[in-house]
Order: sequence, then structure tokens, then C-alpha cells
Amino acid sequence: MNEQHWNERTNMTMLTDFYELTMGNGYLKHGMADAIATFDLFFRDVPESGGYAIMAGVEQMIDYLVDLEFTEDNLQFLRERNLFSEEYLDYLRNFSFACDVWCVPEGTPIFPREPIVKVRGPLPQAQMIETMLLVTINHQSLIATKSSRIVRAAEGRPILEFGARRAQGYDASVLGARAAYIAGVAGTSCTIASEQFGIPSLGTMAHSWVQSFDSEYESFKAYAETFPDATVLLVDTYNTLKSGVPNAIRTAKEVLIPRGSRLKGIRIDSGDLTYLSQQARIMLDEAGLSDCQITASSSIDEELIRELLIQGAKIDVFGVGERLITSKAEPVFGGVYKLASIEKGGIEHPRMKISDNPAKVTSPANKEVWRFFDKETGDALADLITLADEVIDETKPYVLFDPNHTWKRKTVENYTIRRLLEPVFLKGQCVYKRRDIESIRAYCRRELATLWDSVKRFENPQVYYVDLSQKLWDLRDHLLRLNGD
Amino acid sequence: MNEQHWNERTNMTMLTDFYELTMGNGYLKHGMADAIATFDLFFRDVPESGGYAIMAGVEQMIDYLVDLEFTEDNLQFLRERNLFSEEYLDYLRNFSFACDVWCVPEGTPIFPREPIVKVRGPLPQAQMIETMLLVTINHQSLIATKSSRIVRAAEGRPILEFGARRAQGYDASVLGARAAYIAGVAGTSCTIASEQFGIPSLGTMAHSWVQSFDSEYESFKAYAETFPDATVLLVDTYNTLKSGVPNAIRTAKEVLIPRGSRLKGIRIDSGDLTYLSQQARIMLDEAGLSDCQITASSSIDEELIRELLIQGAKIDVFGVGERLITSKAEPVFGGVYKLASIEKGGIEHPRMKISDNPAKVTSPANKEVWRFFDKETGDALADLITLADEVIDETKPYVLFDPNHTWKRKTVENYTIRRLLEPVFLKGQCVYKRRDIESIRAYCRRELATLWDSVKRFENPQVYYVDLSQKLWDLRDHLLRLNGD
Repeated sequence: MNEQHWNERTNMTMLTDFYELTMGNGYLKHGMADAIATFDLFFRDVPESGGYAIMAGVEQMIDYLVDLEFTEDNLQFLRERNLFSEEYLDYLRNFSFACDVWCVPEGTPIFPREPIVKVRGPLPQAQMIETMLLVTINHQSLIATKSSRIVRAAEGRPILEFGARRAQGYDASVLGARAAYIAGVAGTSCTIASEQFGIPSLGTMAHSWVQSFDSEYESFKAYAETFPDATVLLVDTYNTLKSGVPNAIRTAKEVLIPRGSRLKGIRIDSGDLTYLSQQARIMLDEAGLSDCQITASSSIDEELIRELLIQGAKIDVFGVGERLITSKAEPVFGGVYKLASIEKGGIEHPRMKISDNPAKVTSPANKEVWRFFDKETGDALADLITLADEVIDETKPYVLFDPNHTWKRKTVENYTIRRLLEPVFLKGQCVYKRRDIESIRAYCRRELATLWDSVKRFENPQVYYVDLSQKLWDLRDHLLRLNGD
Repeated sequence: MNEQHWNERTNMTMLTDFYELTMGNGYLKHGMADAIATFDLFFRDVPESGGYAIMAGVEQMIDYLVDLEFTEDNLQFLRERNLFSEEYLDYLRNFSFACDVWCVPEGTPIFPREPIVKVRGPLPQAQMIETMLLVTINHQSLIATKSSRIVRAAEGRPILEFGARRAQGYDASVLGARAAYIAGVAGTSCTIASEQFGIPSLGTMAHSWVQSFDSEYESFKAYAETFPDATVLLVDTYNTLKSGVPNAIRTAKEVLIPRGSRLKGIRIDSGDLTYLSQQARIMLDEAGLSDCQITASSSIDEELIRELLIQGAKIDVFGVGERLITSKAEPVFGGVYKLASIEKGGIEHPRMKISDNPAKVTSPANKEVWRFFDKETGDALADLITLADEVIDETKPYVLFDPNHTWKRKTVENYTIRRLLEPVFLKGQCVYKRRDIESIRAYCRRELATLWDSVKRFENPQVYYVDLSQKLWDLRDHLLRLNGD
């Protein structure tokens, strides 16, 4: 079984909002099958008022696009709706993906309002893929973003992802584990995610193991005999300090040490984690087991981790469940997919969504996204959205300005720039080279290191600059004024 | 394509927490492969402090159990962990499901602390299926419970499920749509959910449709010409009252009515939904389009629906997205799976999890769950958990008592009772007969009608009685006292 398998398990072509198909039929009927649309996928707010999000889900998005195909069963289902023309059903039968798709690489820190996926191609095609692009990128970016917060809070202590049982369905378990690993989690309890994606799998025992034996000590002894080199004992089934930890120490002394093994760890899954971990640490140290790690795993998230660490909890590893795998504090990543431009008869018409709510006004036209880095320090300075054909000369100073407060200007010098969007499909052909998940994870770590600490702050983070070029700002302003008339 | 397909797309056997497998190896090594375990799946709190939850996910749970099988690839993956014995890998290779499984039928209102799934069978098997049972039941019950709240708030107005793009992965879209439909939602935007499960599919146009044309009116006209009998026009792309609604009325008059069709509806997706719907209603009525329905679809959930209705919004249909499909206000259904009893050498040992936190203390032994109904009115009176071998004589009064405040007693007379748990596997053989989703949905509606309104209240609902029989209470008390010594 290889990494591709999870996504190839079924054809997701029909996982599309019904209106994508009714619109497709309409576009075809009105001679717009060959109009070339440019759509941007972007988000408006970082979950939990954080300073950045993490891009994830690109490989699953690509798998979907490679596999796009309507079966005769699909077409028959649509025919029976008594809505679609035979001409349109033929169009779907002969569907051959012809779009260009660019996206920000997985693991990249991303910011509100910048295109993180851009699709350019025949209108009915670019329209139809909206739903799957959104669900794929929204879900994995949500979990990667949440995981990055949790990993950061733990200040180097490993985070284990234990959430499969509380995930919102199977993909949420498996692809959630993938996104969490990209963002720096150390391993997962989810066996199939380990098998599919090569994520380290972890886990030892549940309370039911302890309860299946006639005593806690017997259960610990049996486990240690079975896995002497991987013994982590769950110590809170009866009474953590009076029974669990003493029995763990006894197991180390009577079962493991005599056979040349060490007690790898204990796990505390309930109670006052600060007090229990401190007391357990003292007991373990006094027993000569200072190498025995303490894992804690009850209602953990970044807030609790930070509080526990401030209180001096002696926890070496955190097991995190539902609050990571559902991003419980904010379970939606609000990515949207908006038309930016439409080309008909060779003429490009930039489009934008006007709204009474300025936050919902989009940016028109086919665009490019750039990231400026300080040439000396490598720090990320700002992102800039330009028209697609703009060129930036790195040898010259560049004036950035706030698109809402245009008098706030800043000249950057001595910088390097990088285009954030990379092509993954050109004329419908996949040009993406699969990456090892370890390399995506390492890339994520490196890119996060380019962000200022102030952007990574949990409370009231510095807002990272996402600016528009003068040309793009002018076009946007022009279109807004036209509509205002 | 039939209803089974979605679940058969891949073998989910390896979607299990890694510790289920390490424990399995340990059980085998310690001669406990034939110990007979009884596990209960139950939950402790209704999401959002509601008065009831809705059971869902049973058919997908059954599909998983029917398909349980370890492939040679799976076994090789496990072998490479360098943890498992060849004896255990052989056990998995020859895995043949042998458990009994009972569960509460889909669509049933369910309450905290009562077993909603019960598994009894060989310890390593009953243990191994924990993760998939939990993720399946937790996810769909979460969405069914949330959907039931939303449906109830709308007081008969149809709810359309539009959340696919914001779901936490593909299953979350598709099986979420299924759970929502069981709980009374009228249809889904998710085409594949419609195809797989026969749920009505719905949807007409996005803002991109409107923006793809040179004017809003042209876009409406084109849509009406394409789908004259299913025209619902999105009216908020430019300006709802100044442009959208007038253009919709013009489309009705110039395109639809001349060809004998009516304008089916308009959709408002932003702005002040109360004011806009009231004004739009007046404009439509004055134009002779009082049969044109108004759909609203922006950040809808049960709270907003109740507020809009109180304010007199003129909304006929609600389109609900992320707040339903992620159960945004509380995205976790906290089902757990706990050992209740273990039989070794023919002797049954009831087990319970003792905890400092009384809410986390479980009920021991192999149990049965009963629902009492008023013989006259059909109202649900209480649920009762008994030992599995207890018999209740419906012809005699029965004394119920509060398990926490045992002096609170109530004698019920003139009642009927029903066992809530029905067998779905016996000795590993599936005995469940698949149900049409419409019949599950109708059953859900009927069962909900048996609950008192006070239990269905949004704020501070009456707590439905879930009591223990005297025999079960005595056993539990005995075991608690033993542990306390």
C-alpha cells in the first residue's frame, strides 16, 4: 500500500455541490464553455485570532484532480434529475481537465486574503472543482494551523495526536493526522495514517487493558513482559499516586530492569495534571527512574499546555485528542473560492465581489503572490499581491503600502522575494512532483522560523503585512468606484 | 452505484488506534484471547446542553464490521514495527469476527450514560473495534443531533444542508449529509451524498454565475432559460433590493411567465436577513409573485433562525452550511467505549471505571436498556438500565428512582416498555436488515414526537430520566464500596 492509496479509494468527482453542475449546464447552453475563468481560493481570518495559518491538503487536492472522471453511473444519476441536457451530459462524459492550477506549497505559513490556490481554465471546469478544492484545503489547513499552535505551546516537548475516535469521520482522522504531522506533531495513534503516510504510530494501553486483569500490577507486569522495550503504563485507572505510580515503579524494578530494559514512560489521563505529574516525577526520580517520561493526555490543547508549563507541571510528552483533531475551539477554516477574472473572445474582464461589508470585497484579476524576505536575516517581511504580469526587480527598493490606510508606506531594501504560488497543473497536466511527508514537515518548520515571534504570539499577534501592488490597488479602486456610481 | 458503496470504498480495518493492536498482542500472549469482554459505548453529555441526542452511523458501523479483514500488506506493515509477535500476526491473518453487537436503532433519541452500542465477544476483537465504532457513531450522532436542533428551530420550514465545502473532510461532507437527512433536513447540496444515499439534492447558482455574465439581469435570464422549472436566483451579488430583487422580478415577468413557468425562489446570502427578506417579500408580492420562496443562507444555525423568526423575517427556506456540518458550536460528540464485564473460565467479572470525578464512574456488567412509554399518550417517560437478565413485567407498577438521589422515587403504571438495544451481529454474523433512509428518517420523526416538549427545549431543558434498576444500582454500589476500602 502506498501513499496514493487513501485518495484513490473512490472517485470523488461527484463530491461537488449540485449547483456547480447546474451552473455548468447553463454555461454550456449559453456559449460559455470556452470562456476562461480565473478563480482564487483564499481565506479571510486566521482561526482563533492567530497570526498565521499553515497550508495543507495540496496532495489530496491533486489526487482528486488527476482522478476526475464521470462514470456512466454518475451520468445516469444526473440524467434522472430531469434537469440536465444531453449535451451537458456528453460534455461531462468527455470531461478532460484542461485548467492551470497553482498553489502555495504545503507547510507554508499563509495569511488572510492572499490567493493560496489559483485556477485558470474553462469556466465550467474551474467552477466544478470548487467544492472539492475547498473541503480539501479547508480541512487540512484547519488541522495544520491548530496543530502548529499546540506544537508551539509545548516548547519542544513532543505532541502525540490521539484524536481518531473523536474526529468528524474517517478522512478527518486520517488526513487530520497527516496535516498535524506536517505542522510538527511527533506521531499519531491512527494506525492507517501511519501505514498510508509513514507517520510514526504510537500507543500502548487503555483503561480496559488494566481492568481486564485481576489487579493493576498484573496488568502492568503482563504489558512489560510483552513489550519490554516499549512499556508506557497508564497509571490513573484506580488511583494515580497511591496505586498507579507505585505499581509502575514495581514493574520497572521487578520486570524490566532484571531483563535489562527500562520503563519508557507512564501516562496520566485524568485529574490535576500539574500536581500528579510533579508527585509522580518525585516518586520516579527517587526510585532511580529519572529517564521514565511522563505523558499527559486529558483535554489537552495549547491553552492547557501553556498553563501547565507555567505551573511547573513535569510533563515530557502531551497526548492530544479531540481539541486538535476537530480544532474544537474553532472548527471551521473559512476558505472561499471567488471568481477574479473572465476572458471571453480574447478579452480579459477582471471581476470582484462587491459587498456592503468591506471585509468581503475581493481582489480582481489574475494575480501573483510574492513573499519578501530580509536578505540578511531571512525573516519574512511582508507578502505582496500583484497583477500576474508585474515584475519586481529585487535590486531596487520597493514601496509597500497598507491597502486600507494607503498613507502607511514602507520602503523595503536589501530583500529577496519568492513567488508563493507554484504550478501544479498546466493545461490539465499534473506537473507536481510528490514530496516525502518528512520533507514537507521540515519545510514547514523552516518557513515558520522565518516569521517574527510577534506574528506567532498567541494573544493579539502582530498582523503580518499582506499588501497590494499599486497597479492592483488602482484596478480594484477603479472597479469599486464604477460600482458605486 | 448503491448505498453500500461509500463504505466499501476502502478497507477500514487499519483505522484503529495503535494501542488496540498492542493490547491485542498482549491479551493473546497472556492467554486472554478467549476471555469474553462486554463493552458499552455511551456518551456523558448532550452537546450544547441540549435535552437529547440522535443516534446515527449504525449502518456505516455495520459495513466496517462486515468488511473487517487484515491484508498481507497490513500484516507486513505491522511486522515492520518490530513489536508484534508472529503468533499475533497469524491471529490477525485468520481474524474472523465473532462478537455479538447490539445497538440503538438509527434515528432514536438517546440520552447520557445509557449504552447505545454494546459489544460482547473475545477480548482482543471487542477491543480492536473501539476506534472505528467511536469515530463512526460520534461523528454521525453529532451531526444528527445538531441538525435536529436546527430543524426544530425552523418550525416546519425546510432546512437545506449546504456545508460540504466547510466539512472536516470527505466523509464529513457525505456522511454528515446522511446524518442531517435522518434528523429531518430536507435536502443536501452534496451531489455524491444524493447519489449514494438517495437524499434530495439541491442548489442553483453561486455568485460566480452572476459575475460571469456582463450584467446581473443577463445572468438571471440565462439561468431561467436553462432551468425554467427550477429557477432560484441569488440576489445579493451587487445590491439585493436595488438590483437583485428587481432583476429577479423582471426575469419572472419577461422570461418565466411568458413560457408558463413561475419563479421558484430567490436566495439572499448576506446582509440583514430580517430586513432584506421583509422588503423582498413586499416587492415580490406586489409583483404578483407571492408563490416565490425566499431562501436565506448566511451563517445560519438554530440560534439565528429563532432570532430571525422572532423578528418577523419572511424566510421560507434556510440554507445551512458550516454551523451544521461541523456542529460548530460544539464539534465533538463525546462517546466513549468502556469495559463493563469480563468473563474468564466461565465466571463473569463485572468491571467499572472508578474515578475521583463521579461523572466518569461507569456502570458495570452486561446490561439492557429499556424505554418506558405512557400507554395512553405514547409519551416517553424514562429510560431504565438493568442487568441483562432482568425481566420487567409490564402489567405491574415499576418503581423508578434517581441513581444519585435515591430517595427521589416514582412509581410508573399503565406503561409499555421497549428494549432500546437491538442485535445487529450474533456470533459475528450480521443479522441487521438494511433500512431505507426514508424509513429511518420517518422513524426519527416519530420517536422525537414521543419526547415531552420540555425535554426538547433549547434553554435549560428538562433532564430526561435515565435510571438504574435496583439490582444494577446495588452491584454498582457494592463495587464502589469495595474500591473505597
